[in-house]
Amino acid sequence: MALNETHDPALQSWVASANTGSSDFSIQNLPFAVFRRSGKNEAFRGGVAIGDQVLDMAAVRDAQALGAEVQTQVEAAAQAQLNALMAMSPAQCSALRLALSRGLRLGSAQQAALQACLVPQSEVEYTVPARIGDYTDFYTSVHHATNVGKLFRPTNPLMENYKWVPIGYHGRASSIRISGVDFHRPNGQLKAPDVDPVLKPCNRLDYELEMGIYTGQGNHWGDAIAIEAAENHIFGLCLLNDWSARDVQAWEYQPLGPFLSKNFATSISPWIVTLEALAPYRTAFTRPAEDPQPLPYLSSQANREQGALDVQLTVAIQTPQMRAAGQPAAQITQTSYRHAYWTMAQLMAHHSVNGCDLQPGDLLGTGTLSGPTTSEAGALLEITEGGKKPLTLPNGETRTFLLDGDAVVFTGWCEKPGAARIGFGECRATVLPARQA
Amino acid sequence: MALNETHDPALQSWVASANTGSSDFSIQNLPFAVFRRSGKNEAFRGGVAIGDQVLDMAAVRDAQALGAEVQTQVEAAAQAQLNALMAMSPAQCSALRLALSRGLRLGSAQQAALQACLVPQSEVEYTVPARIGDYTDFYTSVHHATNVGKLFRPTNPLMENYKWVPIGYHGRASSIRISGVDFHRPNGQLKAPDVDPVLKPCNRLDYELEMGIYTGQGNHWGDAIAIEAAENHIFGLCLLNDWSARDVQAWEYQPLGPFLSKNFATSISPWIVTLEALAPYRTAFTRPAEDPQPLPYLSSQANREQGALDVQLTVAIQTPQMRAAGQPAAQITQTSYRHAYWTMAQLMAHHSVNGCDLQPGDLLGTGTLSGPTTSEAGALLEITEGGKKPLTLPNGETRTFLLDGDAVVFTGWCEKPGAARIGFGECRATVLPARQA
Repeated sequence: MALNETHDPALQSWVASANTGSSDFSIQNLPFAVFRRSGKNEAFRGGVAIGDQVLDMAAVRDAQALGAEVQTQVEAAAQAQLNALMAMSPAQCSALRLALSRGLRLGSAQQAALQACLVPQSEVEYTVPARIGDYTDFYTSVHHATNVGKLFRPTNPLMENYKWVPIGYHGRASSIRISGVDFHRPNGQLKAPDVDPVLKPCNRLDYELEMGIYTGQGNHWGDAIAIEAAENHIFGLCLLNDWSARDVQAWEYQPLGPFLSKNFATSISPWIVTLEALAPYRTAFTRPAEDPQPLPYLSSQANREQGALDVQLTVAIQTPQMRAAGQPAAQITQTSYRHAYWTMAQLMAHHSVNGCDLQPGDLLGTGTLSGPTTSEAGALLEITEGGKKPLTLPNGETRTFLLDGDAVVFTGWCEKPGAARIGFGECRATVLPARQA
Repeated sequence: MALNETHDPALQSWVASANTGSSDFSIQNLPFAVFRRSGKNEAFRGGVAIGDQVLDMAAVRDAQALGAEVQTQVEAAAQAQLNALMAMSPAQCSALRLALSRGLRLGSAQQAALQACLVPQSEVEYTVPARIGDYTDFYTSVHHATNVGKLFRPTNPLMENYKWVPIGYHGRASSIRISGVDFHRPNGQLKAPDVDPVLKPCNRLDYELEMGIYTGQGNHWGDAIAIEAAENHIFGLCLLNDWSARDVQAWEYQPLGPFLSKNFATSISPWIVTLEALAPYRTAFTRPAEDPQPLPYLSSQANREQGALDVQLTVAIQTPQMRAAGQPAAQITQTSYRHAYWTMAQLMAHHSVNGCDLQPGDLLGTGTLSGPTTSEAGALLEITEGGKKPLTLPNGETRTFLLDGDAVVFTGWCEKPGAARIGFGECRATVLPARQA
């Protein structure tokens, strides 16, 4: 996707909080969410982040504040589920972005009309922003696959298919929750060596640092998406935590894959950063020269030259002790999405090569985005080598896996000289005690 | 579920075709579907089968032909997606069944009003009868698991977890299609020994004989469904064909399970037979004495005494040569759902034990329902031992896997002395040639 005037790093907004250079929600970002004012029993509707404010798209619609040319898009962006917006063409979405950018710029003639549509982010709550028909989770980090493979299959860590097939599986759509919704530690069958399994609260609860990719326009059932066109089917990205019960997983996952170990909860960040906003942060997609080249349906020049995406990602944990002491979450990992072995375009092309139909709002998880080193590992399973090497937190506490009351916080952003900062906000949830089994 | 007057085998309908003894749609059945008259560009709406007719529930609603006491249920049953009906309590669903039974009986005072709401089944087409939020596929036949295990993992056919865990995985909801919708042979990565994989049309296309179980009332996220209450969360059953690309599956399925080998198409029969209609065919659920007993959350007296369901199932294939010669599909398998190793109630209790939320309209596949002998095998993979022993059809043709133009037809029914026949109709689709890869 080419750069255009909306990416100009010199742009400033009349919403001053967007111009700090450290805001996730610069005028070059303009991500979408679904929100309402907290505690008001209002209807959820679409909004756009700008600095520390939400532009209420239902109010923009009612006031026709962005002009007749994009009113159709504004109506879709005002809904309580953004599927209709996601179903629009990249050109339609791009026209809306341009209108938002011009309307929110310093000096805009629409400032007064749009100012009346702002709600402070501190006063809102969010919900899952689309009807997610199907959720698919991939396994795109070769580092994660290798680290985990060593633990589950010491003799065969990286399967022969890994470098040919973008491995993925279907996840559970119903249990996806928005950031801030806490969840109970799951119960499940746990199996110790040489004894029968028992139903107990999970003892090895973990997070997985992922990004979520929302499908934009769908494909017709039976029609594959060509890799050259694949990014036309991507609306935008968010942060995603694929909570995982490692002890349940180890016992249940063969031969059909993870099931109850994953489907109790998946957390997503509220803001969807559009692929267009991320255009300045595309990078080359390279694999080691000794690795096989992707099959033709997974290969294109554009994909090689700029298929990857350099999103900085962090994981932090806030224990109950830190919370009681007024300490913020302690960062334990920093990595980047650029390390992924398979690009977004490859995931779309692979997912549909058999004719499987993707629909607007379908969500694809990237899989755990571990980088090459331990400090870049995206799950406790990897950091603690399966629970054998406890992680020491800055306040001296240790963790092998998550304890009740631990909050896990992901953040993500793009930053580089010559481009505006584009942030994802955060994805956060706290582990509540298990319910009685 | 107790027997009541709607199960009385002596009941006869004023729709004479329901009374033949051989009709799938006796007055004791009363299954639901979503239909419209073919070629009329009408709206889809709910209907109930009686003999060779469909009772148009939208017409029943408009005429208020079933009485005010069940008008709420009639309104839900008239929708183009039956989720609202499925969300109702068993008592509400049972009241609708009783009203339908009384209205359609010989001598009913409502005969004239209901007769005006009939549409011949020969004049209608069907669609997927609910918004299927999530589709889960299980693996409940120990015979299938063992047969397939021998082929994929000769040294370890039945995993240690099989007799403890009702193994399941998430499937694809978007590519579920109603019986009669044909599909293209999928393309996928095929890997022969000692050479690189290639993208080609699947060479080992197979069916899987399953039943589908529609979730009725859902559970709240975080709350497990107790096995004693599990059947209150089941609305009804259909036939399901889990089309499978065996060559794609063999290459892709480790370590996260089947993905593109399954998600190109799943076919379901249009009629949903309610659990209440099936009450006379409940049977004891027994497992070999040497096998482990299910963990307490998967065990109840009612489940042991009548957890299983004796549905007769057949598979037939119609090749293009048969079709050209005017021959019907040739039956190749007959088996029963009663052979399953895990019951419906166990699947619901297991699926939710970690707090995973099931929603009205969610679909659970049983997994391939192979019986103990080869003539009861529910997939060509088993019948032909992985393609090594071709199956000879009655007309002399042979098959290892499906060829283009082959139609696969499933039927299902319950029958025994002292109870009325309860049929499922059929689930049929034809393999179209692959599209260009």
